[in-house]
Amino acid sequence: MKVFAYGIRDDEVPALKSWQEENPTVEVDYTNEVLTADTVALAKGANSVVTLQLDPYGADVLEGLADLGIKNLSLRNVGTETIDFEAAKRLGFNLSNVPVYSPNAIAEHAMIQLSRLLRRTKPMDAKVAKHDLRWAPTIGREVRMQTVGVIGTGNIGRKAINILKGFGAKVIAYDKFPNKELQEEGLYVDTLDELFAQADAISLHVPGVPENVHLVNEESLAKMKDGVVIVNTSRGNLIDTDAAIAALDSGKISDLALDVYEGEVGIFEHDWSHEKLPDEKLADLIARDNVLITPHVAFYTTKAIHEMVYQSMSAALAFANGQTPDNALEY
Amino acid sequence: MKVFAYGIRDDEVPALKSWQEENPTVEVDYTNEVLTADTVALAKGANSVVTLQLDPYGADVLEGLADLGIKNLSLRNVGTETIDFEAAKRLGFNLSNVPVYSPNAIAEHAMIQLSRLLRRTKPMDAKVAKHDLRWAPTIGREVRMQTVGVIGTGNIGRKAINILKGFGAKVIAYDKFPNKELQEEGLYVDTLDELFAQADAISLHVPGVPENVHLVNEESLAKMKDGVVIVNTSRGNLIDTDAAIAALDSGKISDLALDVYEGEVGIFEHDWSHEKLPDEKLADLIARDNVLITPHVAFYTTKAIHEMVYQSMSAALAFANGQTPDNALEY
Ligand SMILES: NC(=O)c1ccc[n+]([C@@H]2O[C@H](COP(=O)([O-])OP(=O)(O)OC[C@H]3O[C@@H](n4cnc5c(N)ncnc54)[C@H](O)[C@@H]3O)[C@@H](O)[C@H]2O)c1
Ligand SMILES: NC(=O)c1ccc[n+]([C@@H]2O[C@H](COP(=O)([O-])OP(=O)(O)OC[C@H]3O[C@@H](n4cnc5c(N)ncnc54)[C@H](O)[C@@H]3O)[C@@H](O)[C@H]2O)c1
Repeated sequence: MKVFAYGIRDDEVPALKSWQEENPTVEVDYTNEVLTADTVALAKGANSVVTLQLDPYGADVLEGLADLGIKNLSLRNVGTETIDFEAAKRLGFNLSNVPVYSPNAIAEHAMIQLSRLLRRTKPMDAKVAKHDLRWAPTIGREVRMQTVGVIGTGNIGRKAINILKGFGAKVIAYDKFPNKELQEEGLYVDTLDELFAQADAISLHVPGVPENVHLVNEESLAKMKDGVVIVNTSRGNLIDTDAAIAALDSGKISDLALDVYEGEVGIFEHDWSHEKLPDEKLADLIARDNVLITPHVAFYTTKAIHEMVYQSMSAALAFANGQTPDNALEY
Repeated sequence: MKVFAYGIRDDEVPALKSWQEENPTVEVDYTNEVLTADTVALAKGANSVVTLQLDPYGADVLEGLADLGIKNLSLRNVGTETIDFEAAKRLGFNLSNVPVYSPNAIAEHAMIQLSRLLRRTKPMDAKVAKHDLRWAPTIGREVRMQTVGVIGTGNIGRKAINILKGFGAKVIAYDKFPNKELQEEGLYVDTLDELFAQADAISLHVPGVPENVHLVNEESLAKMKDGVVIVNTSRGNLIDTDAAIAALDSGKISDLALDVYEGEVGIFEHDWSHEKLPDEKLADLIARDNVLITPHVAFYTTKAIHEMVYQSMSAALAFANGQTPDNALEY
């Protein structure tokens, strides 16, 4: 049995090697190149292919694989929108993805950034870096003293709530489809407006579906407490950037952390240190003392990468053995 | 009734004003000057004095107060080693301090720094600051995947444990005098050596008493896991700085956070940005990607300051009313 993996980054190699050791009867080979019509020949002899990339999996790529007798394709990530499902169906492909790799990775990042904003670590770090070792006036706030509003209590929001409880914060939550356990704990408020009115800090954990676009906008900000702290690790379109910048300027938002950004496509995942960052709003946000920007890295932990590699490799092996893994796509 | 407060910093004013509003019958006055033989006259007419400073409370100061008929002195901090207790006794002073203001302030800071080290926020922030928006290779580790060793399970260590549990980390603890509740939870290992052998990350929460000096030294480091993460928010003398630097160089310590530092006296609380920082080891540590230095700020939160002001002012009022507050010193 042979599995061939495309687009393997350096940080994925340890997990891949470890999977290989645990599955000594499987032949594993890989490349750092992504899967295209040009690179498809590399997989020759494999029973299944594992992949992760931004480039689409078009009909040409799928046909190329099918010509080599390979009809098992396992993605290492969640998103499947780049697959040509029509071609895949016609060719009889088995497909899988990794829908849940580590909700904690994102929840931890969100809560670390939230606590850092409260503690004002960015200005404190900047002082220390230039050898200004005075503590005043960079005073922090304690997480436990805050009422934190968690919007969205799915896989990630629930983990964030656990972390907040450990800190001893007062948690209030909102979700269109409340979770039973949290409901029994009495954590939910009935409306978003109630959450906006009560929360000292807000963390967003809902999908970027049309109804959630610009959940944070001029109108909703007006309903929030003065000096609210906002963290977004979910989708860039949840926040109206212009409204957020105006609220930072007025002090309505005291601190903001963004791991996602409305205009991130074509901007994140790129090194702009030697050319002009072509997004002035983002450059402005990055420069602020009370704003923490990270380029969509909340998922980026050794555990998450391990899960992505393991779950996709195991699915690829299952397909090769004629089995249907849990994470097989029905399409 | 009148209380006079010395050495009031800007960040203490809100708490002082708020105490005053809640005690409208008490006359409150204050200065940002510290209490010395020269400034003692400012307290004239007061029944009690509240104070916080590094300068000693010597016989001259205490006599100056006694000459004004003031024999009630309430410190806003823990440490009482700067009081001339002999003179205080002779003059019949009532003294109080604030032994516990907010263990959470320190515990939160320790755990925020610990999680930041695991998440590599310092190199990631540096990349973003220069507009390098690529995430690889700055991969993080999740707190929940770590075995975290907490040394010292007093007021602060116990709060740190709660936070770690919220993250879902595996906690192991050591204390010479185990806490009953934690013992029943089975968190304790029997020896420090066991903790050293098992912990991926270690946070120190013991006092800097003689037997704890250089708890982290060449010998104990050799017993720890390769790539251990260490956080010290307790006392600088708990870590042998030279051994820590050697361990950082060798990779034995992968990441280090210090809020306290062996040589901090005369170095912290000072702005060296316009002159040479006269401690090369500290300058070296500050410059490292995998080291977070803060200048003894773990206590510095609005809640802690509030408690320091409220508890000292209330003790001062109690003394003035002939009562003995809970935090009165027996000496
Ligand atoms: N930054 C990153 O690296 C990263 C990585 C993975 C996921 N994410 C994002 O995190 C977010 C949460 O992911 P998840 O795995 O927890 O999703 P999930 O589907 O498990 O949970 C989402 C929750 O939001 C609720 N919801 C949907 N619309 C809502 C609304 N209008 N108001 C209130 N609640 C609403 C749903 O009922 C559900 O409980 C998603 O936006 C996802 O794209 C970010
Ligand atoms: N960075 C800051 O701003 C800041 C502020 C306040 C306190 N601190 C420091 O934090 C530390 C902890 O404070 P706390 O209030 O939790 O103290 P605490 O007295 O409540 O707890 C200390 C614990 O350490 C244990 N202990 C003592 N020696 C030990 C040893 N050799 N091995 C194992 N356990 C030992 C004691 O049994 C006790 O349980 C102290 O060093 C204190 O000076 C730092």
